[in-house]
Amino acid sequence: MDAEFGQVSIVGAGLLGASLGLALKQRGLARRVHGVGRRQVSLDAAITSGAIDAGFLELADGLAGADLIVLAAPVNQAAAMLEAVQAAAPLHAVITDVGSTKADICRRAAELWSAPRPFVGSHPMAGSEKFGPEHARADLYDGAVCLVEADTSIDPRAADTVRRLWQAVGALVVAIDAAQHDALLARTSHVPHVLSAVLARLADGEDIVPDLIGNGFRDTTRIAAGRPELWTEICLSNRDAVLAALGDARKDIEAFAAALESEDESAIAAFFDDGRAARQRLCGP
Amino acid sequence: MDAEFGQVSIVGAGLLGASLGLALKQRGLARRVHGVGRRQVSLDAAITSGAIDAGFLELADGLAGADLIVLAAPVNQAAAMLEAVQAAAPLHAVITDVGSTKADICRRAAELWSAPRPFVGSHPMAGSEKFGPEHARADLYDGAVCLVEADTSIDPRAADTVRRLWQAVGALVVAIDAAQHDALLARTSHVPHVLSAVLARLADGEDIVPDLIGNGFRDTTRIAAGRPELWTEICLSNRDAVLAALGDARKDIEAFAAALESEDESAIAAFFDDGRAARQRLCGP
Repeated sequence: MDAEFGQVSIVGAGLLGASLGLALKQRGLARRVHGVGRRQVSLDAAITSGAIDAGFLELADGLAGADLIVLAAPVNQAAAMLEAVQAAAPLHAVITDVGSTKADICRRAAELWSAPRPFVGSHPMAGSEKFGPEHARADLYDGAVCLVEADTSIDPRAADTVRRLWQAVGALVVAIDAAQHDALLARTSHVPHVLSAVLARLADGEDIVPDLIGNGFRDTTRIAAGRPELWTEICLSNRDAVLAALGDARKDIEAFAAALESEDESAIAAFFDDGRAARQRLCGP
Repeated sequence: MDAEFGQVSIVGAGLLGASLGLALKQRGLARRVHGVGRRQVSLDAAITSGAIDAGFLELADGLAGADLIVLAAPVNQAAAMLEAVQAAAPLHAVITDVGSTKADICRRAAELWSAPRPFVGSHPMAGSEKFGPEHARADLYDGAVCLVEADTSIDPRAADTVRRLWQAVGALVVAIDAAQHDALLARTSHVPHVLSAVLARLADGEDIVPDLIGNGFRDTTRIAAGRPELWTEICLSNRDAVLAALGDARKDIEAFAAALESEDESAIAAFFDDGRAARQRLCGP
């Protein structure tokens, strides 16, 4: 009998793509895993590590015969290659991605394919400061949350395949509308990255005393150490939602500053009270 | 021979005061530790736990005979009681505090005492979300950084005593000007608390999907769970420096938003690049 997902073609052999390949192969979920990359040396390394069975430099070669296609390229590249993927993909193939923003690529897919479409956006919330195929792990998705696009234009069979894919590698699947995904992520992830960078930039200077750096500062600025190119890409591909959330953050800062300026103790206390209550609601006590 | 610091009177029996009492007594550094508090039940608990030898409800009684006085009351209360402390303190007594902001209380001390003054401001960077004497630990200051006021109006004997006090309980002492202390702490601690609360408030809402909360959000908002009353007090007592740093943070956010609005990829990348470099300079790689 065939492995559950047949031939899987993964485009992009970075941390997310290579980890998916390892997970599929180690769990026997794919009959064959093809990798598509831009450098032969990366593809050879992925074959050696056991993440893929064969590597291809040309998209059309790598997608030939695929039952399931996973775009694991950076978020802007994945959207830009969607038309080429459509041209090269077998008609029955189901297609998904792993990008951190969803509205752009899902809108593009809805333009390219008429309903019911075979593309279903995914956002596995895995990965960290470590990146590149050398950090790939078969258990990267184990226990991770994977947000999967919900939309009436999606072929139910494709939605089912993509849901099963992430569950098969250990992820908890949560269905979500692409625009809602981006609006929520702007507030829970993208703007926190911007403000984390603002805090690091604010404290930096010739007059800094390293001994003054405490755990609070370390915690709030930890994600500022993230890859600049990744966050540039994410903010650009989620521009409107990030700008809207940043506007709300600015208003809140201005309200706090006005309360402090006028020494309005009860307004300041209410601000911190609400912040603590919100943090406890969102993250637990 | 007498214990190094003679009779030590600690005003305030919270986490910082009770931990100092425990450390002094366990290390045999004080001949006798007096505690001054507002509630007999807290003083009794401090005696039972071994943090103090005797408790007093009246400041004058608790300070009688003191060689070293440590004000461990909340930062605004400590500044407000300084005149009463001056009236009640023995003439030879050295006086310090444990407040998170220094300019206010040190300015008040410089007004009250003519030079060379016996008051030296301290800010031991210890304590956490846990507060109250029940969390007191003899090793709270062990390995902590303690910032100690440097100023020409301070009696060198007092400065030496206060430096030795913190070193004796295990802290690393760093001398710093009070105004510089507050300006730097505004950037490394107080504004991070404000922005952490802003992020928690921003993400909170009826539409939130708890599964979207990742480690980045947990890290950036951890300190938003801090005690509202403490942070209200700290911001009020460091108002000007916090407002100045918040103003700088707002300008940086506005510059980022302008770059994103115009999709200026290189400006956005430079913003995140600088943020990462700053984080690495301040906290290590």
